[in-house]
Amino acid sequence: MIEKEFKLDHERLKRLGMVEAIWGQHKSYEQICEILRRFQATSQMALVTRVDNKKAEKILDTLESVQYHSQASCLTLGSPLDLDPSLGEVLVVSGGTSDVGVAAEAELSLRMHGIQTDCLMDIGVAGLHRLLGKLERFTKARVVIVCAGMEGSLPTVIAGLIPQPVIGLPVSVGYGVSGGGNASLLSMLSSCSPGLLVVNIDNGYGAAMAALRIIKSDLFKKY
Amino acid sequence: MIEKEFKLDHERLKRLGMVEAIWGQHKSYEQICEILRRFQATSQMALVTRVDNKKAEKILDTLESVQYHSQASCLTLGSPLDLDPSLGEVLVVSGGTSDVGVAAEAELSLRMHGIQTDCLMDIGVAGLHRLLGKLERFTKARVVIVCAGMEGSLPTVIAGLIPQPVIGLPVSVGYGVSGGGNASLLSMLSSCSPGLLVVNIDNGYGAAMAALRIIKSDLFKKY
Amino acid sequence: MIEKEFKLDHERLKRLGMVEAIWGQHKSYEQICEILRRFQATSQMALVTRVDNKKAEKILDTLESVQYHSQASCLTLGSPLDLDPSLGEVLVVSGGTSDVGVAAEAELSLRMHGIQTDCLMDIGVAGLHRLLGKLERFTKARVVIVCAGMEGSLPTVIAGLIPQPVIGLPVSVGYGVSGGGNASLLSMLSSCSPGLLVVNIDNGYGAAMAALRIIKSDLFKKY
Amino acid sequence: MIEKEFKLDHERLKRLGMVEAIWGQHKSYEQICEILRRFQATSQMALVTRVDNKKAEKILDTLESVQYHSQASCLTLGSPLDLDPSLGEVLVVSGGTSDVGVAAEAELSLRMHGIQTDCLMDIGVAGLHRLLGKLERFTKARVVIVCAGMEGSLPTVIAGLIPQPVIGLPVSVGYGVSGGGNASLLSMLSSCSPGLLVVNIDNGYGAAMAALRIIKSDLFKKY
Amino acid sequence: MIEKEFKLDHERLKRLGMVEAIWGQHKSYEQICEILRRFQATSQMALVTRVDNKKAEKILDTLESVQYHSQASCLTLGSPLDLDPSLGEVLVVSGGTSDVGVAAEAELSLRMHGIQTDCLMDIGVAGLHRLLGKLERFTKARVVIVCAGMEGSLPTVIAGLIPQPVIGLPVSVGYGVSGGGNASLLSMLSSCSPGLLVVNIDNGYGAAMAALRIIKSDLFKKY
Amino acid sequence: MIEKEFKLDHERLKRLGMVEAIWGQHKSYEQICEILRRFQATSQMALVTRVDNKKAEKILDTLESVQYHSQASCLTLGSPLDLDPSLGEVLVVSGGTSDVGVAAEAELSLRMHGIQTDCLMDIGVAGLHRLLGKLERFTKARVVIVCAGMEGSLPTVIAGLIPQPVIGLPVSVGYGVSGGGNASLLSMLSSCSPGLLVVNIDNGYGAAMAALRIIKSDLFKKY
Amino acid sequence: MIEKEFKLDHERLKRLGMVEAIWGQHKSYEQICEILRRFQATSQMALVTRVDNKKAEKILDTLESVQYHSQASCLTLGSPLDLDPSLGEVLVVSGGTSDVGVAAEAELSLRMHGIQTDCLMDIGVAGLHRLLGKLERFTKARVVIVCAGMEGSLPTVIAGLIPQPVIGLPVSVGYGVSGGGNASLLSMLSSCSPGLLVVNIDNGYGAAMAALRIIKSDLFKKY
Amino acid sequence: MIEKEFKLDHERLKRLGMVEAIWGQHKSYEQICEILRRFQATSQMALVTRVDNKKAEKILDTLESVQYHSQASCLTLGSPLDLDPSLGEVLVVSGGTSDVGVAAEAELSLRMHGIQTDCLMDIGVAGLHRLLGKLERFTKARVVIVCAGMEGSLPTVIAGLIPQPVIGLPVSVGYGVSGGGNASLLSMLSSCSPGLLVVNIDNGYGAAMAALRIIKSDLFKKY
Repeated sequence: MIEKEFKLDHERLKRLGMVEAIWGQHKSYEQICEILRRFQATSQMALVTRVDNKKAEKILDTLESVQYHSQASCLTLGSPLDLDPSLGEVLVVSGGTSDVGVAAEAELSLRMHGIQTDCLMDIGVAGLHRLLGKLERFTKARVVIVCAGMEGSLPTVIAGLIPQPVIGLPVSVGYGVSGGGNASLLSMLSSCSPGLLVVNIDNGYGAAMAALRIIKSDLFKKY
Repeated sequence: MIEKEFKLDHERLKRLGMVEAIWGQHKSYEQICEILRRFQATSQMALVTRVDNKKAEKILDTLESVQYHSQASCLTLGSPLDLDPSLGEVLVVSGGTSDVGVAAEAELSLRMHGIQTDCLMDIGVAGLHRLLGKLERFTKARVVIVCAGMEGSLPTVIAGLIPQPVIGLPVSVGYGVSGGGNASLLSMLSSCSPGLLVVNIDNGYGAAMAALRIIKSDLFKKY
Repeated sequence: MIEKEFKLDHERLKRLGMVEAIWGQHKSYEQICEILRRFQATSQMALVTRVDNKKAEKILDTLESVQYHSQASCLTLGSPLDLDPSLGEVLVVSGGTSDVGVAAEAELSLRMHGIQTDCLMDIGVAGLHRLLGKLERFTKARVVIVCAGMEGSLPTVIAGLIPQPVIGLPVSVGYGVSGGGNASLLSMLSSCSPGLLVVNIDNGYGAAMAALRIIKSDLFKKY
Repeated sequence: MIEKEFKLDHERLKRLGMVEAIWGQHKSYEQICEILRRFQATSQMALVTRVDNKKAEKILDTLESVQYHSQASCLTLGSPLDLDPSLGEVLVVSGGTSDVGVAAEAELSLRMHGIQTDCLMDIGVAGLHRLLGKLERFTKARVVIVCAGMEGSLPTVIAGLIPQPVIGLPVSVGYGVSGGGNASLLSMLSSCSPGLLVVNIDNGYGAAMAALRIIKSDLFKKY
Repeated sequence: MIEKEFKLDHERLKRLGMVEAIWGQHKSYEQICEILRRFQATSQMALVTRVDNKKAEKILDTLESVQYHSQASCLTLGSPLDLDPSLGEVLVVSGGTSDVGVAAEAELSLRMHGIQTDCLMDIGVAGLHRLLGKLERFTKARVVIVCAGMEGSLPTVIAGLIPQPVIGLPVSVGYGVSGGGNASLLSMLSSCSPGLLVVNIDNGYGAAMAALRIIKSDLFKKY
Repeated sequence: MIEKEFKLDHERLKRLGMVEAIWGQHKSYEQICEILRRFQATSQMALVTRVDNKKAEKILDTLESVQYHSQASCLTLGSPLDLDPSLGEVLVVSGGTSDVGVAAEAELSLRMHGIQTDCLMDIGVAGLHRLLGKLERFTKARVVIVCAGMEGSLPTVIAGLIPQPVIGLPVSVGYGVSGGGNASLLSMLSSCSPGLLVVNIDNGYGAAMAALRIIKSDLFKKY
Repeated sequence: MIEKEFKLDHERLKRLGMVEAIWGQHKSYEQICEILRRFQATSQMALVTRVDNKKAEKILDTLESVQYHSQASCLTLGSPLDLDPSLGEVLVVSGGTSDVGVAAEAELSLRMHGIQTDCLMDIGVAGLHRLLGKLERFTKARVVIVCAGMEGSLPTVIAGLIPQPVIGLPVSVGYGVSGGGNASLLSMLSSCSPGLLVVNIDNGYGAAMAALRIIKSDLFKKY
Repeated sequence: MIEKEFKLDHERLKRLGMVEAIWGQHKSYEQICEILRRFQATSQMALVTRVDNKKAEKILDTLESVQYHSQASCLTLGSPLDLDPSLGEVLVVSGGTSDVGVAAEAELSLRMHGIQTDCLMDIGVAGLHRLLGKLERFTKARVVIVCAGMEGSLPTVIAGLIPQPVIGLPVSVGYGVSGGGNASLLSMLSSCSPGLLVVNIDNGYGAAMAALRIIKSDLFKKY
């Protein structure tokens, strides 16, 4: 039998400055507890994504110092990393109510790495006035993460209005041809707004880590 | 051998009020001439779509009364139908320079059926100010046809701003995932703006015939 | 944590003349109740689509003035809008018994906006006599919405027979290559009948809003 | 180097009663001549499909007894097989002018095997009266082959009207989502008319061989 | 509300010689009972496909004269139609154990229409000797229906060996790229064996109705 | 006829700090000349992408001050923008010789906006030593753009090794399943390296504009 | 009714040297027991794949000599085959914790055929040092099976480093575009490392049988 | 401008025992000459794949010691590597005449690495007797490479008959759903014959390198 031991990439924090995220969806209650215990033993921070309410409750009953974030469906262990707040803030935007879960995963992942965040929900392009009335909130952000399901137009509209890095985060919300998030993903990749960046469907953690890379890229300036 | 004779649907005009359109792309110079001669013989109007410059020139050399519309890549025979101008006007909008050919096919098809038209080109969402500055042009239209390639967001933005029927017309402009017009089509079908209607990629004639059906639906009111 | 507050687009009624529809499928019982209470507080009409029997029952137990329409799987709040009946009637047609749910969503959405409706069920093209025997019912409609799963031929056949606007509404009924509604959608988009319009798979509400736009486009005539 | 010799399946005629068809599209002028010479040497019949005009002319210049059928884009060698005419006739139907090439390949393949054929072109469902006015032509056929591109509804409508075997033959005519024949193929496979049979896109020869199998299946009755 | 009444195509038996099949998968226990009662009232035969064990048991408890065929997951009402046995027999073949359900649906549909059937299960091409050792069973059949999931090679191999009509019936058995039956369907459509016919994935009833059309095509011979 | 006039988004430079890029692939020699003349008239910089050798030569013969960059298949007008070099440098990496064209489009677009660039070609993962031997070149870059066709693993490997922003740029190089760049795109979107960003296939200009947004995001820090 | 009897390919062991594997996923508890009893009756070895915990427990309660391997989700009957250990060992590698199930199916299938195995888990390319630090484990293997989900880069990196046969085994782990394993499969097929071999998604048994064929190919050397 | 220099992986021969293959399809005459000159200068062997007749002729005119293999569309430089013939022979099989080019690329690549080869062309499954009559040729091979387009059944049939490693090589021959080789690829991946290995469509070189890895894996036995 294959040894069950998980070889976590403990060097990731040193190498990339990122907390290792454990993808919880296909892991059992027992597997997640075992992983978290190992992190606890070495006093490391941990982030477990895609943990539903039921599984989370059982884990919280077993492990004391773990916290559950129900909107983001994530478990965390330990306190957020420190980061110089002057590096700037990341704005997380979403087009509709159904995108909130993915937006929350991104927002939590940012905060766990010490990044300042702001949020703007429900400003989809079907009612453009909701977006245009909030433009000054965008001027305060260094990076903008835009969650959108359905036809995914929101990141295109925003990237045409502002000069900052915009990360399109497609969401698997929809039905028919938009179900699964594919229409939204294709729309973002095809964007006529120059320089829109894209990550995988529902990948809130990935969008956050990309924003972290951008925020911390100051270290690689040529002083 | 199968008899080469084309059985055109001459009843279409009577039944649907539409001129029969001949799809010219895969027809030879000889086939198109033969079809047009038959229309001429019965003094009927005709519209041949997707005829490139070279084929058109040879046909114009052969048949006198035919006209070529190079922007729309269409041939026409006969003069436009009459229609009551008070039924209202159709506005044809396009997002980028590359959509002009499809927009022109739609616009010509409308005019051949006697419909008043207006056109707004190059108002893509990557520069939203171009669209927002033209909003009053939209209030004069009864139906709006919106051509868009790439990520196809324009019809969604417009259908969120105005109450009239909006017909999304995806255009096969792009590269990578947007090549062939599929991303644009999916985007329009997935639109979060309620009531956006869609036709096949590059189907300028179809969008025009849908607008014609709408314009003439007054006949089916319950006076 | 992201504030849970839903920013509904209350301007939609004023701007587009449409009641905001809430997509109920991925919302919890609690979320739907919260939204409906806010509508109640401001005496607004509301339409919640894709609510199954179980969820509906719990909501009806909690909120008094809400109504459930089981065939359409929709909840409504408030009474329908008023609309001039002389604007004409919309005919909702379906090919098979399994399309009834989607047809009912379209029909209810129309009635909530004050539009007169008629319905013809089970007239699929596999038994063409059922359709041909009902043709005079079509002459009384200003717009026809045609629901079809499987191979989706029905809208093509109807759009070849009548001059009114025809909206093809693909239904996710089928198995193998027709499962999910994709074959039906492609068939409608590819239609050889000129001017057939299409909306997303199962999008009964969208088809209805498109019909509403058409019916009310009289306001944009050039008197 | 791999020996260039072609190992033709000369047993096919004995085993299946079918003339071997050579797929000419990707073969050079030299390769086709070489193959035909070998057939000539053994006095066998041959059928080469998908040979364009230019290649055909060069081959006709080289090999005397070969015949070219330009509508079907096929070369034949030798005279048709004999078959008892009382076995019945095959009707080849097409929806539009652009399907004629594929229909002609099917019709020629049938005639080369001695089968009686009839043809009905240009009876697409967009003008249903053209089909309904010809129904008695269908009662004389034992098998019906129906060619259709675009949305491919024609075989579904026909298979709902007649009890004979109907073979749907999708044609790669169209643009946008119907380009390549895929929408038509999916439509036929999804058909709500029970017992519709389907072959690959543009496979006129295959549809003919299927009809041959049906016509000759009398040999396997239980007298 | 849309009237719930089902408009069954009672003319189908007269027109096509086929019993109407009701697709049971998405219908509730109540809907199926209601339909069957109407058939009972007019003493008609009925076939309901895709009914799982649980639903079937409840229906059998309610309606007396109904029979359940668990292997085929079908309900039937009434006794099979009469058919001249000399018209020949249909052989139903399957490649693997997992195809048995679809094979059984085909076989039952044939028997309900009075057709003689034979069955050969588990003769997949991975062990070719199993097929080659049974070849004489094929010589007794007039039509062969071949069920296959996975890579779907079996119909190709059989159609290369025998001259009768072969109907490929792809089965949604598999995983990875073969899950859902798509690889099997594509394989059958692409077959290098001339004249292989194909129906939709899992469409046992459709394959049977196609065989019925073939068997009864004798009526259209030219005596 | 639709007025041919191009409405360029002259505000883009002011709004986004980006030179407008004209997509040259589907534009004629005449159209490109007309556009460039208008830029010349207002002394603006311009970038035209996807212009092949032949078209470029004709344009250079007509317009004096235009420059052609054959490796990048781009035309430029005017001199590069000024940018503070201390903002840091962008490293453009490619996996194979065939990616050079796309890499060059990215590199030129960066230089036209005043950004310092470095290039590393031919360091594909099939020979990992080529990459590992060059790691210190990566430590000098603030942003890394990684071009890769075929299976597209290179950006994943690099993003696992360095903490800077990495932009995956899929290239349409390959054959079979990798033809068109789709396998590479999916691979980058699916990456197990956290925070890898992706743009459309062959979109060298887009990758460059994303890097520009990142480099200039310093303006949005919270000093 | 179709006879339920399973015709197992008992010759497979003699012909191919492989134990027949029964695919347990879609088989019921009763079916699996029946099959295993027949194997027991003839004292043959058996391997049943894809059996979940619940089904396995019921089977173990019924049949004594059966063993369950929970990590691999497989049942086995009988003891492993004998094989000369000098033929060499197979190394099974996986990129992430979630691939362990598929890796275990491969590993168990190898051991049941008497092959020596070694395992390396959790050495994904996102942390390349984990792989590079284990290279000498690879030099002891004759064949390497590499399991990978997500973007599937691991087999490409390994096949570029070692000269032995490498079998890429895509795993259906992921979400968005990587869900279902398709991105991983395409990546492996597109690999720029020469001679990488691929099997179907999640096909652990298949990868093992391919390794067995390679290990035993010594019998076909030309001594 | 990016330096044009190609960084060839000269270590590949030492590391993997493989000659570097240059993919010639998208390289110009000049680029190929430049690469070959560099190989010549260091007296290394080279293989350039996918070079058409015209390009080859120009190169042969320029470089003396280069050889063109027209059936395989490959150029080679230098003489084949030496390999112990007792390691065994590789049999290259193809289903149809149109697969010969891909088969020849595989066969040449094997010979350039010193491997003994045998070839069997035109033994497709549509005429199974051609394959069954040649079975003893298979017993002399250590590895079998099977090229197949269309429905790609041949590797499945062969892998069910013989115990050696079988490498399925899908060929982009076909039309409709089989065009591009996708049906063939899916068929091979889905194969019900255990242990069939697969490479990318048309990847003759890749299949050969996989066979080389297998043949040379003797070095990793445990003596």
